[in-house]
Amino acid sequence: MNNATESALLTDLYQLTMLQAYFDKGLDDTAVFEFFVRKLPENRNFLLAAGLEQVLDYLENLHFSADELHWLRNCGRFHERFVDALADLRFTGEVWAMPEGTPFYANEPILRVVAPLREAQLVETRIINLLQFQTLIATKAARVRLVAPDSLLVDFGLRRAHGAEAGLLSARTSFLAGFDGTSNVQAGMRWNIPLFGTMAHSFIQAHEDELGAFEDFSHSHPKATTLLIDTYDTEAAARAIVPLARKLSHEGIEIQAVRIDSGDLGCHASRVRAILDEGGLPNVHIFASGNLDEYAVQALLAAKAPIDGFGVGTRMNTSDDCPYLECAYKLQEYAGSARRKRSEGKASWPGRKQVFRRFDAEGRMSGDTLALEGDEVTGTPLLECAMRGGKRTVASPTLAQARDYARAQLARIAPPWRGLEAAVPYPVEISTTLRELAQQVDRKSM
Amino acid sequence: MNNATESALLTDLYQLTMLQAYFDKGLDDTAVFEFFVRKLPENRNFLLAAGLEQVLDYLENLHFSADELHWLRNCGRFHERFVDALADLRFTGEVWAMPEGTPFYANEPILRVVAPLREAQLVETRIINLLQFQTLIATKAARVRLVAPDSLLVDFGLRRAHGAEAGLLSARTSFLAGFDGTSNVQAGMRWNIPLFGTMAHSFIQAHEDELGAFEDFSHSHPKATTLLIDTYDTEAAARAIVPLARKLSHEGIEIQAVRIDSGDLGCHASRVRAILDEGGLPNVHIFASGNLDEYAVQALLAAKAPIDGFGVGTRMNTSDDCPYLECAYKLQEYAGSARRKRSEGKASWPGRKQVFRRFDAEGRMSGDTLALEGDEVTGTPLLECAMRGGKRTVASPTLAQARDYARAQLARIAPPWRGLEAAVPYPVEISTTLRELAQQVDRKSM
Repeated sequence: MNNATESALLTDLYQLTMLQAYFDKGLDDTAVFEFFVRKLPENRNFLLAAGLEQVLDYLENLHFSADELHWLRNCGRFHERFVDALADLRFTGEVWAMPEGTPFYANEPILRVVAPLREAQLVETRIINLLQFQTLIATKAARVRLVAPDSLLVDFGLRRAHGAEAGLLSARTSFLAGFDGTSNVQAGMRWNIPLFGTMAHSFIQAHEDELGAFEDFSHSHPKATTLLIDTYDTEAAARAIVPLARKLSHEGIEIQAVRIDSGDLGCHASRVRAILDEGGLPNVHIFASGNLDEYAVQALLAAKAPIDGFGVGTRMNTSDDCPYLECAYKLQEYAGSARRKRSEGKASWPGRKQVFRRFDAEGRMSGDTLALEGDEVTGTPLLECAMRGGKRTVASPTLAQARDYARAQLARIAPPWRGLEAAVPYPVEISTTLRELAQQVDRKSM
Repeated sequence: MNNATESALLTDLYQLTMLQAYFDKGLDDTAVFEFFVRKLPENRNFLLAAGLEQVLDYLENLHFSADELHWLRNCGRFHERFVDALADLRFTGEVWAMPEGTPFYANEPILRVVAPLREAQLVETRIINLLQFQTLIATKAARVRLVAPDSLLVDFGLRRAHGAEAGLLSARTSFLAGFDGTSNVQAGMRWNIPLFGTMAHSFIQAHEDELGAFEDFSHSHPKATTLLIDTYDTEAAARAIVPLARKLSHEGIEIQAVRIDSGDLGCHASRVRAILDEGGLPNVHIFASGNLDEYAVQALLAAKAPIDGFGVGTRMNTSDDCPYLECAYKLQEYAGSARRKRSEGKASWPGRKQVFRRFDAEGRMSGDTLALEGDEVTGTPLLECAMRGGKRTVASPTLAQARDYARAQLARIAPPWRGLEAAVPYPVEISTTLRELAQQVDRKSM
């Protein structure tokens, strides 16, 4: 599956059939497309923008390879002159976007593409593919972080993520949204994300006895010893660790943590904590994993379970309670005139838009206005120019910088929208000029 | 994100930390791991095995690149001799598996790896990552096919799939499970899957009027004209198509279909069908898309909506009502002795297992037995040898062949398990010898 992600053919066929029709008619004026979410899922009070970096990479590298051009020439759908033109196609346009880690709400564009029609159209599929997924994961991870501000949080989800890229981008995006690290080695290598992980149940089972497995592992990793204690009997394993820890400490090896991966995590953690404390091991941390999400983590912490860290996997990496967003990438202006789709239940706001955000006296987000780009509206404009002439206008923030930004942004979400319970929708006003433009566009196309 | 999918580091850190501990102790006897699903999701009466081809590709190509070895040497977690050993690591083991397109049930292994411990352990993460996702999508797609045996079914889900690989593998797997094609161009090029797709709403909006857009498109694609008619007013667009079709037919262009993508699809389809029929266009097909899944398709067909084909996207490509499986890849035997995990709620059956399937007089699946490999049990054994010595034992079936096999298999699922409603679980017996082995293993490790 190599190079799948770099291909200009990672797109829907209709992008190419439309492009040929545009080519035949010579249609290639400036188009403005915007990516937005039509409505927030019921179980989300905000969304956290993510994926911009991968979109910019994709746009900077966009081109058809020789193999792809050869295939297009011979697939029986496209004519020679059109394929010749595709050979020269690069993305030469402009991108405006909210920085990764910015909270946003229904109908607010987080990305605007301004480019010749064919370029702006072709890139629709992959832009949605990148922005939707990372926004889903960033949002899910941010919810876990908000309910567990002081816990160690680690992404464990590669195995049940939907393919390789989903696993990689989950590691990146959950880190951006406030996680402390990941188990995903390639993500660690690629983005310098701290790595976590020690042993699986199979490690214990491959040994004749559990204690021998613990000892072997500790000798191989004297500086990073976390022991998985639930393969057979969790509390029995915890009791066995007390004398082992004493023995190992004479060799200069310190057990850092134990991990519990099954059963009632809160109950086990309390009993294990008591055993470790009585055994003189108050500094050995308890790490829990297994079917966790923001709801489970919140419940464990509310019940004062003595758990220091959580491995969050499947449910975050698939965003299981909300595996997709009602998102769209829509044409809002073509050749200087505003456009809007009016399909039932799918009407959108026309024109080049900007989102203005207001803050209260404590610096918390108090309301947004969805307006036209040039509108004079109170508040901070959220969409910034990220690309011009097909190249980034500024160096991208590092992942660590984006993470700092996201943390600061999340701190500014006011209480009703920070929690997991459904809140009254965050206030998003529509500016008068935008309403007027929508009416004007409708009159024109009637 | 290139080469992400080919990397040996697309794994969890703990695989590598365990490997170093095994290396230090010289543990590398033959290990047997099996991949299975602990229990079927509530809303699935069967699962359809998929992903084996990608697993075999991965195993045949497994190695650490120079860059990866360099990174491992310098990440501060591993010692030199261990990384040197990784440089030589290849997969040299054996794989037994159910062919792609085989229905299966809870606790039945669909893949067994028999290899030196370190090899068999390292590959866990990516094997789960590949098998779980494709099985999810194959199952979802098969459910759509079973409720719509005669409809044209097309995968439209790339944009909201979780990343590039999810989009590609969804196209492949839905085709394997009985879909007719995909909109995903790269999947079409890669696997020769029929491609479908014509225009988006933006195409209509980029034109001054809808009829002009229809005409332009038809001229550019005279042999593949499907018109999207719901951008403004669905029935008005259908009425406009009647004279347009007459005009185009004089130029030798035939409109093949119209697509409806919003509103009450059944209602619109009925009205549009009447307009087209009255207009002398009974051969123009109606294609529907927008928020479809097996439930919506079943409801539309039950209501006799005159829809000839369906574009199924997001809900299939995210398997939205079941975005993950309770699956596992577990050590079942090491150095010749059976193993089993006993963690609460996660106990598994030990040993090298085989699934035997029985059929009734009409050739329909009537029950399975989960047994040990050598057991003498009535029925057809489902796990076949796919790889020996790290190489495929036979050439893989083509995707078309796998699709034929899946179709024949799905035809053999008996009525209670074919439907969408939750049925009584399909009967899976546990053989006496397997039960005895489990008891024996438990006694030994007590």
